[in-house]
Amino acid sequence: MLIHQGFHEECGVFGIVQHTEASNLVYLGIHALQHRGQESAGIVTSDGEELYSHRGMGLVADVFSQDILSGLKGTTGIGHVRYSTAGSSHLKNAQPVVVSCWRGQLALSHNGNLVNAHNLRDELELKGSIFQTTTDSEVILHLIAKSREHDLDQAVIQALKKVEGAYALLLLSKDKVIAVRDPNGFRPMVLGVKDGSVVMASETNALDLINAEFIREIDPGEMLIVNGSGMESIFPFTERRPSFCVFEQIYFARPDSMMFGKSVYEVRRNMGRQLARENPVDADIVIPVPDSGIVAALGASDEYGLPFEMGLIRNHYVGRTFIEPRQSIRDFGVKLKLNPVRPIIEGRRVVVVDDSIVRGTTSRKLVRLIRDAGAAEVHFRISSPPIIGPCRYGIDTPTREELIASTKNLEEIREYIGANSLGYLSIEGMMEAVCASGGHHCMACFNLDYPVNIFSDQPLSHN
Amino acid sequence: MLIHQGFHEECGVFGIVQHTEASNLVYLGIHALQHRGQESAGIVTSDGEELYSHRGMGLVADVFSQDILSGLKGTTGIGHVRYSTAGSSHLKNAQPVVVSCWRGQLALSHNGNLVNAHNLRDELELKGSIFQTTTDSEVILHLIAKSREHDLDQAVIQALKKVEGAYALLLLSKDKVIAVRDPNGFRPMVLGVKDGSVVMASETNALDLINAEFIREIDPGEMLIVNGSGMESIFPFTERRPSFCVFEQIYFARPDSMMFGKSVYEVRRNMGRQLARENPVDADIVIPVPDSGIVAALGASDEYGLPFEMGLIRNHYVGRTFIEPRQSIRDFGVKLKLNPVRPIIEGRRVVVVDDSIVRGTTSRKLVRLIRDAGAAEVHFRISSPPIIGPCRYGIDTPTREELIASTKNLEEIREYIGANSLGYLSIEGMMEAVCASGGHHCMACFNLDYPVNIFSDQPLSHN
Amino acid sequence: MLIHQGFHEECGVFGIVQHTEASNLVYLGIHALQHRGQESAGIVTSDGEELYSHRGMGLVADVFSQDILSGLKGTTGIGHVRYSTAGSSHLKNAQPVVVSCWRGQLALSHNGNLVNAHNLRDELELKGSIFQTTTDSEVILHLIAKSREHDLDQAVIQALKKVEGAYALLLLSKDKVIAVRDPNGFRPMVLGVKDGSVVMASETNALDLINAEFIREIDPGEMLIVNGSGMESIFPFTERRPSFCVFEQIYFARPDSMMFGKSVYEVRRNMGRQLARENPVDADIVIPVPDSGIVAALGASDEYGLPFEMGLIRNHYVGRTFIEPRQSIRDFGVKLKLNPVRPIIEGRRVVVVDDSIVRGTTSRKLVRLIRDAGAAEVHFRISSPPIIGPCRYGIDTPTREELIASTKNLEEIREYIGANSLGYLSIEGMMEAVCASGGHHCMACFNLDYPVNIFSDQPLSHN
Amino acid sequence: MLIHQGFHEECGVFGIVQHTEASNLVYLGIHALQHRGQESAGIVTSDGEELYSHRGMGLVADVFSQDILSGLKGTTGIGHVRYSTAGSSHLKNAQPVVVSCWRGQLALSHNGNLVNAHNLRDELELKGSIFQTTTDSEVILHLIAKSREHDLDQAVIQALKKVEGAYALLLLSKDKVIAVRDPNGFRPMVLGVKDGSVVMASETNALDLINAEFIREIDPGEMLIVNGSGMESIFPFTERRPSFCVFEQIYFARPDSMMFGKSVYEVRRNMGRQLARENPVDADIVIPVPDSGIVAALGASDEYGLPFEMGLIRNHYVGRTFIEPRQSIRDFGVKLKLNPVRPIIEGRRVVVVDDSIVRGTTSRKLVRLIRDAGAAEVHFRISSPPIIGPCRYGIDTPTREELIASTKNLEEIREYIGANSLGYLSIEGMMEAVCASGGHHCMACFNLDYPVNIFSDQPLSHN
Repeated sequence: MLIHQGFHEECGVFGIVQHTEASNLVYLGIHALQHRGQESAGIVTSDGEELYSHRGMGLVADVFSQDILSGLKGTTGIGHVRYSTAGSSHLKNAQPVVVSCWRGQLALSHNGNLVNAHNLRDELELKGSIFQTTTDSEVILHLIAKSREHDLDQAVIQALKKVEGAYALLLLSKDKVIAVRDPNGFRPMVLGVKDGSVVMASETNALDLINAEFIREIDPGEMLIVNGSGMESIFPFTERRPSFCVFEQIYFARPDSMMFGKSVYEVRRNMGRQLARENPVDADIVIPVPDSGIVAALGASDEYGLPFEMGLIRNHYVGRTFIEPRQSIRDFGVKLKLNPVRPIIEGRRVVVVDDSIVRGTTSRKLVRLIRDAGAAEVHFRISSPPIIGPCRYGIDTPTREELIASTKNLEEIREYIGANSLGYLSIEGMMEAVCASGGHHCMACFNLDYPVNIFSDQPLSHN
Repeated sequence: MLIHQGFHEECGVFGIVQHTEASNLVYLGIHALQHRGQESAGIVTSDGEELYSHRGMGLVADVFSQDILSGLKGTTGIGHVRYSTAGSSHLKNAQPVVVSCWRGQLALSHNGNLVNAHNLRDELELKGSIFQTTTDSEVILHLIAKSREHDLDQAVIQALKKVEGAYALLLLSKDKVIAVRDPNGFRPMVLGVKDGSVVMASETNALDLINAEFIREIDPGEMLIVNGSGMESIFPFTERRPSFCVFEQIYFARPDSMMFGKSVYEVRRNMGRQLARENPVDADIVIPVPDSGIVAALGASDEYGLPFEMGLIRNHYVGRTFIEPRQSIRDFGVKLKLNPVRPIIEGRRVVVVDDSIVRGTTSRKLVRLIRDAGAAEVHFRISSPPIIGPCRYGIDTPTREELIASTKNLEEIREYIGANSLGYLSIEGMMEAVCASGGHHCMACFNLDYPVNIFSDQPLSHN
Repeated sequence: MLIHQGFHEECGVFGIVQHTEASNLVYLGIHALQHRGQESAGIVTSDGEELYSHRGMGLVADVFSQDILSGLKGTTGIGHVRYSTAGSSHLKNAQPVVVSCWRGQLALSHNGNLVNAHNLRDELELKGSIFQTTTDSEVILHLIAKSREHDLDQAVIQALKKVEGAYALLLLSKDKVIAVRDPNGFRPMVLGVKDGSVVMASETNALDLINAEFIREIDPGEMLIVNGSGMESIFPFTERRPSFCVFEQIYFARPDSMMFGKSVYEVRRNMGRQLARENPVDADIVIPVPDSGIVAALGASDEYGLPFEMGLIRNHYVGRTFIEPRQSIRDFGVKLKLNPVRPIIEGRRVVVVDDSIVRGTTSRKLVRLIRDAGAAEVHFRISSPPIIGPCRYGIDTPTREELIASTKNLEEIREYIGANSLGYLSIEGMMEAVCASGGHHCMACFNLDYPVNIFSDQPLSHN
Repeated sequence: MLIHQGFHEECGVFGIVQHTEASNLVYLGIHALQHRGQESAGIVTSDGEELYSHRGMGLVADVFSQDILSGLKGTTGIGHVRYSTAGSSHLKNAQPVVVSCWRGQLALSHNGNLVNAHNLRDELELKGSIFQTTTDSEVILHLIAKSREHDLDQAVIQALKKVEGAYALLLLSKDKVIAVRDPNGFRPMVLGVKDGSVVMASETNALDLINAEFIREIDPGEMLIVNGSGMESIFPFTERRPSFCVFEQIYFARPDSMMFGKSVYEVRRNMGRQLARENPVDADIVIPVPDSGIVAALGASDEYGLPFEMGLIRNHYVGRTFIEPRQSIRDFGVKLKLNPVRPIIEGRRVVVVDDSIVRGTTSRKLVRLIRDAGAAEVHFRISSPPIIGPCRYGIDTPTREELIASTKNLEEIREYIGANSLGYLSIEGMMEAVCASGGHHCMACFNLDYPVNIFSDQPLSHN
């Protein structure tokens, strides 16, 4: 999977409680999570009395300056990076969202997608609520504000009992941070300690950067209430079967992170090995589609007993607003990002390892690019199963119709992309790669088994 | 009155319905109203299906480009310019505010200040509402959304019956504009026609710029519902004694506007004449504090029979973020804006005409500046009465304690500012100047007679 | 004269030697001279060892920040503001120009226009010089660098003996500032003292702002060499008849400045009086075209015995990149800047006083605007003589063909602009107004008597 | 070699002659060369009559927009990307430099470093030349302008005969492009064809992106004169022994480029293999320092027979202006860029492959980082010989004193960086890896054998 335009709608969250360098550390934390969202970035801090906020469109390093960080006073703070489709690319949707209500000021960083957000929003609007963003996260804040529970913790519980879907969230009030992971645990969130202060982050690589110690994952359904005096952990929701997003491990997370109890790197290498076992090939070299396919390709190369080569070189300067010549260059979009190393490829039977195929258009261009560089044969290997359904929990996959594997069989896909052979990792192989025990992942995009149904809203009166 | 930093919290509004060049004309309209607010600018348009919005900090010409205006589709639109104190200088407070609720998308441009906004906000928050801005205008949108009236017009009426204070507002839904002026008519709003399309604006000079015809003022308590099929006028509120803001005529409005049935220019010249009649002087020349004191000074010069001279030259390039030398220059702030013409002033007995005195610090510096330029005598004349109370309806005057005239008598003020003599316009003289009939103005800042009391909130259950 | 687009190519220069706040004071100095150029701004300072420079497009307040000023180290500095036609609007042409040559680093601020710059440039290019700007100022630096005189002062003299035309310039080396005014003294430059430090500026209003004392004008042909130990004045050039630019007094300078020994304000008022004496009229009121026509209109009003009124209100927010509606508004360009006060004008016979007519198009629109506001008659009065020739010394007038007065007689111009009557100030009247003695001004644009001929270049070998 | 701050002063050049999409293709060309310089970017085009130019600080994609490219008219153009030390980071130094001289307008893109630029500049300054940049490239333009040869080609030859050192340059006049590579051929430049138009570029990957065909390298000492009618190749300089910069192959060039007749990828892999052969080790895995060490590490892994793993993950979002927490994080600079994959490293004996060691500080931090991740042993392997001398031909190495290998022996460096063992590639091994024949490279930074001496200037009168 190469061109992610319009594909992912993911986010990264980070928080720290009671540290003298709160804003600087949140800044570094979300910088480490930049791969989870490049569209907007934001930080909100509290000095115990008031919240201070700054958000902007673009990369973390461009949105913040030392001056801005100095203005974000206080010792507690949360941050957010966001990626989304062009349609909703507005500053107003940048997070953390900050509102004022009878409980005082609240700020929210949310990663994930609520499946009953539209229903809840309709209900809230019918009761007279007004919305200023188009994010599902604003719904959560309305529900918290509307709760009659006096205690904020209880209000958050009451609110979250009404929402369904994926959320890993950090809520900042003037005197505490509440971290919650939904009962299915779709999205990751981990707990760490830095100089005695509690840190929460989407991935462990954010802990690494600030020299924080990784303590453990925040559990599915767990709610952590953290303030200056300490940390309380409760499990207020009905327990559910864990549904960790396997796509985080396949593609989204950084390979240097630990996630769902495993090293992302090792999981990916296992996927590559299993992929090779399941799809033998007679070839000369294995090359990855960089960067996401590298680790799986190393595993496959090892298992195949074929040399691993960096046969495609990635241009890291490619931005979003690139200018295309009027008289179009063939496969221009892919060429901008990747250039084949002809002397490596020429005359060889090449195994190309990528992490996934979405629409198939990029894979098709890629095969052509490699053939143009002189490959004798091109064998495409995918380190995950065919994607046949859209994600409903935070990965912005296209509609089912646009997913090539939902309408074409293996041979048809192979023919479409023009490869000599095509092989996917099987669902069973993937399960083995991610976890010996198994059964704790959401694989809905591969098997249509959606853990939380989009129509399963509890009536709002039930709480 | 010279340095307005932190003094005014005023706005300008403009709207047009069913014109093929809606966004361009709204742009020109708010540009003409730029004197009413330089902090932020915004435009929202509707194409009958959806609203399109752009807002930004700064001047109209800097916030908008032709590209941005082209993206503001549709034939109906409203705009807003805003000035406010530094404390609330955030993009989130820029108007028009746009929200989504069960009635669809709504946008609001509001000029004026609600006196019971805090109470209403507290009530709304207690019922679970969340607020994303710190403006009183957001309260109005909440009330409209919360109204159970099916009809938007009725909902607006129900909402506005709960608010007290000053409002001249334009509400845009996808298919109409509703213009309302509060029953006291504190803030101005006029009606015009351009190429057959209805235009609404804070001042007539905005009509002049786009070649629109001035029809009439929108009346106090009047609500105009304007859509493609025509315009309906209703008066849904209990009638009140009109309370036109006399400060608009003294200082805030453009002299080329018609306001409250009078030419602002002529009113100001009358004030200057009356000021001279009430405060005779033995002097050589009359000079204005430009630009706001020019017209009154012309009237005074005429009545005194003394030559009018531009003895102070204004620098029109002064912005907000000026750099002051470390080793401070005496009266630097005033010098940056005004420079005396020594050959005109030297050896002369000078009458200086300004529109008002707020804290007195600027007047004091001004007198010193004119004396340094060689004036034999400095006679200060103010074309309005002493300001003894803060405004509660949209002019952001300082607290009573900071108003020099609330704590010092005439002789003490004269001594403080260092003038040879000091004369104000009397309240009676001002009334005569603004209106033969009289009795229709708010003069609370001069006589503490506040037409709408800040504690007079109707209980919310009454509607 | 109302719309200056493409008309003036003027500049302002400012310098200070040995003051602890050099960069801040140069900043304020060029800010006070902002009316002389709004396109670019620059400052270069010296700490005795090295030069520090910053230049940018736009207004002084936008180009500089406190950070940038802090980086401009040292106690001596020069600054520049520049206006020019769009064609040469490039950062590379912003001044001060800084170069490095065998004499070390040099920076130059230049106001005026050299008439033999093209010839000199051609000669220099033929000898192998390369040019990086399109300004004539770069020529001066080449000549200084090429001079074999060991002493910088002598090199400057040798260089300037080769150039012809108008220059008021400030040259900064690491240890001194050299100020020179051309032998004709076309452009103004004055000398002041601030806290014991020598200050040089295009106009006295820059001295006023920083509380510097005005000492005297720098004389035509005078060269001042100023460093830490003091100031030396020499007159190295052949004496010439002074040719002060009368247009500075008519239009360009600030009315609060002293220039060529006179108060600009008083000169303009005299012009207005003389204009009225020479052009009697039967009318009701006198109105100026603000701001440049105000002072002359006051003089005319006094002489005519007619009331002075501000019948046109100027919008001070008009910038350069204004958006015009597709369906053009009549006289849009003028309307954006000026709006008539109908109640003042309606039914009246109006005398309009402007400082000059260039192409006549703006005057024509203005007359129409005033008629549309209901004027019974419009009598146009110009406080300077008809412009019949372009300026060659720094005012970027259009070509002779475009100057309406060079192709049409008085009656034809009157008819073109549509006024009931038209009157100019006579050359004799103007001479009387600017100076009792007379004979020391350049009036070439009015009488084609060019003091320095464009073909009078001395051969370069002569020096 | 990991942190390049202040290390390289390299550039990339690109040109195309007679193509309808000149500016778009130059844009793509320099984008492909972005790895050769990220500080500034520029393009100059010619339409046969005039040159059009745009330059700016920053990345190609940020400096140019479609609007700007549309303004760069004409069918011929050259471009430039530049990296340099902070000291000379000014827009004025951005290239292509454009000047005007008696030959008309000329623009120059220059890659490389002249060793006698200071001498030439001193000579030119003594003859009266002024300099506006601090680049050596400006010297070349002065020499061309000063040449009395009527023909531009001859003038370029005469000018270049005076300069010594490294240059791969593109000179654009209104009707042609002249490409020259210095007689030693230090810096690369290649020739290609796109739709029949001649293309010149620093590396072949720029040809790949625009689908241009790679024809051949431009030879050392070759001068190509290209215009609409065709291309002429001449060799006007005394032949010299080629001195291809081996550092291009070790580190600077893209691995997908062909350079000096070899595939950069294959050369690097050979270096890795040879490195392993020369430096046996008893270890568990081989990891590269990404991205520059990847290909050599693949070769080493193969030769060692040890698994290759991506044990360090690179953050591609690291910019230049990063904010460091006050309370510094250990090895922060390296951590920002690289994070170890603990499960891969923990308990293992790790061979780390990097391309070079400059000061040693980064290597030291890196070893510590890998040990902190649990490595049992860290064996550092460098795919080039010890750097003992600064580069004088375009790579901005620090002074000899700062180069760790010039003051410490192998064991001392090993101890300083804290590795269990340290091994470099030998010079002989490197020669074998880059070229079977040998003897055509500059290896001065490794053996102090500088092909062109900095003191070898021919007297200027000799030509």
